[in-house]
Amino acid sequence: MVRLAGVGLLALVFPMVSMQSGPAKVRVGDGPSYTADGQLKFPEKYREWVFLSSGLDMSYDPKPMDMGSSTFNNVFVNPEAYRAYQQTGHWPEGTEIVLENRAADKGTRSASLNKAGKTQSTQMTGLEVHLLDSARLAPKHENDGWGFYSFSNPVSAEVIPRAANCYSCHEQHAAVDTTFVQFYPTLLDAAEKHRTASASFLKEMQGK
Amino acid sequence: MVRLAGVGLLALVFPMVSMQSGPAKVRVGDGPSYTADGQLKFPEKYREWVFLSSGLDMSYDPKPMDMGSSTFNNVFVNPEAYRAYQQTGHWPEGTEIVLENRAADKGTRSASLNKAGKTQSTQMTGLEVHLLDSARLAPKHENDGWGFYSFSNPVSAEVIPRAANCYSCHEQHAAVDTTFVQFYPTLLDAAEKHRTASASFLKEMQGK
Repeated sequence: MVRLAGVGLLALVFPMVSMQSGPAKVRVGDGPSYTADGQLKFPEKYREWVFLSSGLDMSYDPKPMDMGSSTFNNVFVNPEAYRAYQQTGHWPEGTEIVLENRAADKGTRSASLNKAGKTQSTQMTGLEVHLLDSARLAPKHENDGWGFYSFSNPVSAEVIPRAANCYSCHEQHAAVDTTFVQFYPTLLDAAEKHRTASASFLKEMQGK
Repeated sequence: MVRLAGVGLLALVFPMVSMQSGPAKVRVGDGPSYTADGQLKFPEKYREWVFLSSGLDMSYDPKPMDMGSSTFNNVFVNPEAYRAYQQTGHWPEGTEIVLENRAADKGTRSASLNKAGKTQSTQMTGLEVHLLDSARLAPKHENDGWGFYSFSNPVSAEVIPRAANCYSCHEQHAAVDTTFVQFYPTLLDAAEKHRTASASFLKEMQGK
């Protein structure tokens, strides 16, 4: 009885803080929506969202296998989440970050003019989402309200189970709120200004 | 007298068509703004505009000089122009396309995790604009309402004179309305649907 009462008191004193690492967050309205059975709907308008960055052939392996082709990764976020982040250095509830993988063009449309370098083709090779929705995901994901989704169709996707290594890698290496702000050049100033970079990321940078 | 009357009649029958290659265009309101002395103001919010694509180390030369570094080209357009283009396959008056050049990251912030491939750094190396404003530019530019601008500061820029080779190259090779839609994968469908690709571009594609 005493122990249960103690737990209740803690929950009362820290009703939100116990659910996530930062302070209680506002919720933005232009982020995720779900099907009746709880799947994430495909973010139809993401190409009109705010672009964060594009990388080419990023790899965790210093000498990745040569696949004979290249892939761009384009990252977008819903506009209200972008603006809230720029004001606070933290992502609000309802943040939806979209990673679009797109094959580099081998010149079928562009070779007449672009003789070297790489451009983006019409061939998409994948679409993944990383979102913050504590009300929905924190109960499934222990103390973390973030979830990953990988779309195999342009309709809907299930959340990826918490044991997947995307979660642990983001937790260990991501600059802000388990997101890879270190790769998004226009987001770094807000992290610095509001001192919201993670301890693990700052430690990694010091070790360089 | 007769000759003058004839010109007047033509101008009456084709009051707008004579100014540009397509039909008369709507004007969108979220595009260019100018200083009192007619310079284009720096597009402060372009990173919240619609992303069109990102290329890496594009070059007109099949064997460009190895500069020991890489550059990404990110392209953005004002949202109202994007929506009008998607509906019609043509760019409206007030279209403002921004080309941002950004150095690829050599790993100062990201090498701990990204062991290969390229990411975008905080170092911008240039910003150029291509815009359609016939009322302002057509009188200066013969029958063409498009203008190029290159910013050497984040305040304002003069229009680049019409004799510069950016104009002739875009006129000769660009897929739609002198813009390089061939490099913007999400814009190609509208050009195909509305048959707005230029004759010179279609001919180049047939020659491949």
